[in-house]
Amino acid sequence: MKQVSSTKGHMTLPVEVGQEEVVLDLYQRWQADALRDSDGTTMPESLAKQDSDIYSVVCLVRADQQFANQHPEYLHRKYLMSFPVTAMAETLVIQPLDGYSKDKYELDDDSDPKCWWEVRNRTTNTVIDVSLWEFDAATQQVLIKQTQPYHEYTVTFMARQVWDSVSMYNALTNDWKGPRIKSLDPYHPECRAHLIKHFAQWLDEHPNTTVVRFTTFAFLFVIDTGEQNQDIYRDWTGYGETVSPRALEDFEKRFGYALTPEDFVDAGYYNGTYKAPSKRYQDWMTFVQEFVVDFAAELVAMAHKAGKKSAMFQGDHWIGTEPFLESYQNIGLDINIGAVDDGVALRRLTDSMGEQTREARFYPYFFPDVFREGNDPVVESMSNWVKIRRAMLQKPLDRIGYGGYLSLANKFPHFIDHVSEISREFGDYLQHTQGTESQKLTGKIAVLSAWGKARSWLQNQARDQRFYVPPRPDVMEFVGNNLLECLAGLPFEVEFISFDDIIQNGISEDIKVIINTGDANSAWSGGECWDNSEVLVALRKFVGQGGGLLGVCDPSAFQKNGRYFQLGDVFGLEKETALTMGRVAMPLSIAKEHYLSQFVTEGLDFGNPSYVYPQATDIAVLAAQGQHLALTARNYGQGRSVYMGNLPFNMKNARLLQQVLIWLSHNETQQHAWLSDYPNVDVAYYPQTGMVAAVNYVSEPQQVTISNAIGEFVNISLEGYEWKWISI
Amino acid sequence: MKQVSSTKGHMTLPVEVGQEEVVLDLYQRWQADALRDSDGTTMPESLAKQDSDIYSVVCLVRADQQFANQHPEYLHRKYLMSFPVTAMAETLVIQPLDGYSKDKYELDDDSDPKCWWEVRNRTTNTVIDVSLWEFDAATQQVLIKQTQPYHEYTVTFMARQVWDSVSMYNALTNDWKGPRIKSLDPYHPECRAHLIKHFAQWLDEHPNTTVVRFTTFAFLFVIDTGEQNQDIYRDWTGYGETVSPRALEDFEKRFGYALTPEDFVDAGYYNGTYKAPSKRYQDWMTFVQEFVVDFAAELVAMAHKAGKKSAMFQGDHWIGTEPFLESYQNIGLDINIGAVDDGVALRRLTDSMGEQTREARFYPYFFPDVFREGNDPVVESMSNWVKIRRAMLQKPLDRIGYGGYLSLANKFPHFIDHVSEISREFGDYLQHTQGTESQKLTGKIAVLSAWGKARSWLQNQARDQRFYVPPRPDVMEFVGNNLLECLAGLPFEVEFISFDDIIQNGISEDIKVIINTGDANSAWSGGECWDNSEVLVALRKFVGQGGGLLGVCDPSAFQKNGRYFQLGDVFGLEKETALTMGRVAMPLSIAKEHYLSQFVTEGLDFGNPSYVYPQATDIAVLAAQGQHLALTARNYGQGRSVYMGNLPFNMKNARLLQQVLIWLSHNETQQHAWLSDYPNVDVAYYPQTGMVAAVNYVSEPQQVTISNAIGEFVNISLEGYEWKWISI
Repeated sequence: MKQVSSTKGHMTLPVEVGQEEVVLDLYQRWQADALRDSDGTTMPESLAKQDSDIYSVVCLVRADQQFANQHPEYLHRKYLMSFPVTAMAETLVIQPLDGYSKDKYELDDDSDPKCWWEVRNRTTNTVIDVSLWEFDAATQQVLIKQTQPYHEYTVTFMARQVWDSVSMYNALTNDWKGPRIKSLDPYHPECRAHLIKHFAQWLDEHPNTTVVRFTTFAFLFVIDTGEQNQDIYRDWTGYGETVSPRALEDFEKRFGYALTPEDFVDAGYYNGTYKAPSKRYQDWMTFVQEFVVDFAAELVAMAHKAGKKSAMFQGDHWIGTEPFLESYQNIGLDINIGAVDDGVALRRLTDSMGEQTREARFYPYFFPDVFREGNDPVVESMSNWVKIRRAMLQKPLDRIGYGGYLSLANKFPHFIDHVSEISREFGDYLQHTQGTESQKLTGKIAVLSAWGKARSWLQNQARDQRFYVPPRPDVMEFVGNNLLECLAGLPFEVEFISFDDIIQNGISEDIKVIINTGDANSAWSGGECWDNSEVLVALRKFVGQGGGLLGVCDPSAFQKNGRYFQLGDVFGLEKETALTMGRVAMPLSIAKEHYLSQFVTEGLDFGNPSYVYPQATDIAVLAAQGQHLALTARNYGQGRSVYMGNLPFNMKNARLLQQVLIWLSHNETQQHAWLSDYPNVDVAYYPQTGMVAAVNYVSEPQQVTISNAIGEFVNISLEGYEWKWISI
Repeated sequence: MKQVSSTKGHMTLPVEVGQEEVVLDLYQRWQADALRDSDGTTMPESLAKQDSDIYSVVCLVRADQQFANQHPEYLHRKYLMSFPVTAMAETLVIQPLDGYSKDKYELDDDSDPKCWWEVRNRTTNTVIDVSLWEFDAATQQVLIKQTQPYHEYTVTFMARQVWDSVSMYNALTNDWKGPRIKSLDPYHPECRAHLIKHFAQWLDEHPNTTVVRFTTFAFLFVIDTGEQNQDIYRDWTGYGETVSPRALEDFEKRFGYALTPEDFVDAGYYNGTYKAPSKRYQDWMTFVQEFVVDFAAELVAMAHKAGKKSAMFQGDHWIGTEPFLESYQNIGLDINIGAVDDGVALRRLTDSMGEQTREARFYPYFFPDVFREGNDPVVESMSNWVKIRRAMLQKPLDRIGYGGYLSLANKFPHFIDHVSEISREFGDYLQHTQGTESQKLTGKIAVLSAWGKARSWLQNQARDQRFYVPPRPDVMEFVGNNLLECLAGLPFEVEFISFDDIIQNGISEDIKVIINTGDANSAWSGGECWDNSEVLVALRKFVGQGGGLLGVCDPSAFQKNGRYFQLGDVFGLEKETALTMGRVAMPLSIAKEHYLSQFVTEGLDFGNPSYVYPQATDIAVLAAQGQHLALTARNYGQGRSVYMGNLPFNMKNARLLQQVLIWLSHNETQQHAWLSDYPNVDVAYYPQTGMVAAVNYVSEPQQVTISNAIGEFVNISLEGYEWKWISI
């Protein structure tokens, strides 16, 4: 139990020159105990000596632009695939950068194209021999000979990035002028040595800084940029921007085989995190992680030696640092900072291992897109806060913070009050929980995906996301199936496991329910990972011997051996993919007597029609959309399975998920203390402090009756959005 | 030009004992010239000598039940796959017939299981050695040894059919008692000899019959029946019920390789017609066709020798007779009869080659399901008739007819009048067209599928069909994408081509537009047929050199080489299948200046959201559903491409299709004589008779202005549903 004092603050406040009085005012009202600078702001002198922690941002790879300009050979590089070009004759000219931003990318002239590039016929998927193509540096063109008419060709080339993606985004969004910021690749020993020297000097020049806020260490996630300087590809957890000839050579020494350009461009799919990863890509990730952890650990040690703590912001150049993997602990960080706008993002911050302090950087950022006349920033903030609170009840959070221009926020007194209230509630939470964890139901829930632990609590993007236009184009608003958000606020122990985990270690004894949720072909559902009889046998055995299996959307989807759902035998159903249209559809009849039937109520949302139909007579159809199955349950051996078409996030869906997980765990006949059955109210019990929290998700007052530990019923009344603590 | 008299009739009238006066009355009013018996009815003596053609039904394989009962070894057999069973231990017992109708199927005890059956591990897809399993005839069980726990196993077995599917359906639907009818497999020479003898006797016994109406020759399409005697699988054009050890042995001699049980059960997919066929399945079809044509030709020759014409009803036991293939002409039939409920069904009847008379058997059948109190049979009939008329304007039809109980129809005087009107319109049509064909626009339209010609004008069933509950469970009501119905009434020459056609013969010079329409994985879209660079090159070249390509739903869908739509380069788009979610979606902007923009009006229906997005900057987005592309156009080389999300049938969609095909043919600047631009009015010009037909699809009056052959505008007024003829 961490000892949390009620008097000291718990918030990191952004500062701004000229706003010193505002800062001092909000420092009190928001219960701050730390100050930070932000992108575009600096620490006012008068505040830098305040009795508080002083966070100072450092993004080392962007810190020395003079060095970056002098050393193009140390700039970040990446593999890009030219857009496919169709040969109309027997020679073909491809301009590799066609379609890509000329402001951001240059063809890398430090690496020999014949050695590091690759030309492919994409119609036959064959590599074109280097003798059959030439790169002309003067025209920046590749001439391919002996092409086959009406075949498509691509050139995979190494591009040098001459404008850092984040700086580019900020400059274009805020219309910043000034030089284009470049970032350096510390994988080059000379470059690394220079950056280390630069950081040593930075430490000397920041005597008042108590916390070094790394943003972050070496490599950015993937943003590819098109001809109009528009984003054309994004992967927040992608390792595509970590490549250099030197690193590729070292990889071959380390792993005993060489990666090819195709391993990176992946036929144009670029190893998107939403795809099941190849073994080769995973090896590359390991290789990058080893380097980044080593580099980051050196920086952190320097900060410690200078008497400062170190914090990492889990965004921007964070690739290679993986909070859910063991290697992360070798960095030696003191504070993990995560940008948090919902329950899933909070759990991504709070659920990783290690003793780091967890600090949530909340949205909205104090930027003009939200803090503009006519807009109410409280709407977005409250919508986030009610989701975050649910998740906070499940895993401890240590600190909160904001970013951006205080001067903007201060124009909205209503928002200032709202944050004061958030901070007050957070202070009470710290006080009443003392950093301890609330009680969970028995039985661990495992979420099975191709990534497992490495991508714990990562939003499972789905196909519908592409076809949704969010109000703010740069802020992801998650649509469709969203089981994780439902789960983030439920009282279950959750872990994330991969297919490899099952193959190598089997299924751990303490796992009571396994969830597989996601679109077919995605890493979340598993894609080709389901092409493995060991996995199928392990899961059938798990359920057969008493486990619970929950499939949502396209669980176990992989076309093989007469099944699309490889575990369709366990679920008792199949998806129509145009291969079984001759199977006669029988009109569905909805089961009314099943244990779960009582929880099928108005307001549940199963998203898109599932195209799933029954393939067993002993399946209980609990809900359907027309003839599309939406919710089914079945017994299999000693165990149970449930299928759901989709599970978008809303509180009724979340509560249904709770009931489904209880049934799948065979826990439905047990008495559960302090467990809410009400859609809008979450209740958590902290046995180590003897406190119970009840929190109202909505603006309407709620009246609930909850069973306590000895089976007595307790009435709790909550005002709109109220968070109440009860001592027992 | 066939000479059609206006005085003689053109309809085949069903007769019924006790209804002689009704028959004689309707014979006049409906302009009949032929009488027929139906299933369940016989020809009254007094009518059999009427001065008209007398059609008599013969279904030879069901004709001699005594022989069938004496010779179980000649009954129809088929391969069925047991439903998969999961091994829970190291031995497993499978009861092959579990889940199948015991009234219909028996395990075939004439063929040695060890020779003709197959046991498979479906988890690893391996054949279990015959030494590891035993069939116990006493218990009707298969015992499998050394099974792997939690693997699934199946037994593929030969089943004997002891109840003919059609007889079973009729008996269960109409609650007929009496013995269960069996059908005989004439592939056995002894059986064939007996049936020939039986038919000779039948001919002797039917001196008044002028037309032998075969229903049909040898093998039924596929209906699999479950434990509750319910249909569990249907394939109206499937060859699954043609199997016998003798035929399999002969196949091996003929084709030089042996088929396996798996070739028939196909991992439980049973070679559904909606699936792209394997080469082996196509060989089997050829083998069956050779036999059936030979057998049928023998019967037809006997009928001819007896001075009778022969008609074939294209339903029931019609497998092996393929009206669109050359072999069909060797049968020597005089009349093709098709059951026709819409334009596609009509074109399936009228568009096949050969000099046969074409007779459409209309719906509804005079059965109690439609002809019951409170129901108006005219509604269904008129809905069919307006679709059929459009298609009749494109290809000549010779005769019409009905089936069922006249006594039932006669209870609905309104329906009697309605049919009188249909027959009058049909008589006018014969008179004014004289069997000639209306003028078409220049440029042939080819529909590309895995089947090509063999499955011309077959409804392209789609995934949504399964999830639609029709008002009458036994009558297929087609939902969703239905380009063929739109096309059936448009003035284009249409042919159906396959991928093999393209590979073997290239694309014929006279083809101006190629259509690919259907769900991914289906034979209609093409499935694995798209895994062929020759096909891709031929189609890109076709468009590149000036051709038109129309893709609907999932054109060219096959996941390979970085594309889901293999011709996505030609269309300029891609489908999201969860592999490209990182590609950033740009909000769509709708093109208003494209030639086709003028035709994008209210009332168009693009069906389900497409999940398709632009992948080219030079694509014209003409319509979208949210951000899902619904209609796009693009130039590619000298040619053009159009994509549509879906094209359900309605008249606005049909007219849009007309405009799209005109644009794709580069015909948009030409003057088209007698071409309707109006959604509800079709116009056809018959150059050989100098007549123009205008027909109103709807009950509201229509006013249209049509350009004649010399560019003058002609006004035509039509009452609701009116069909007008204009002499020019």
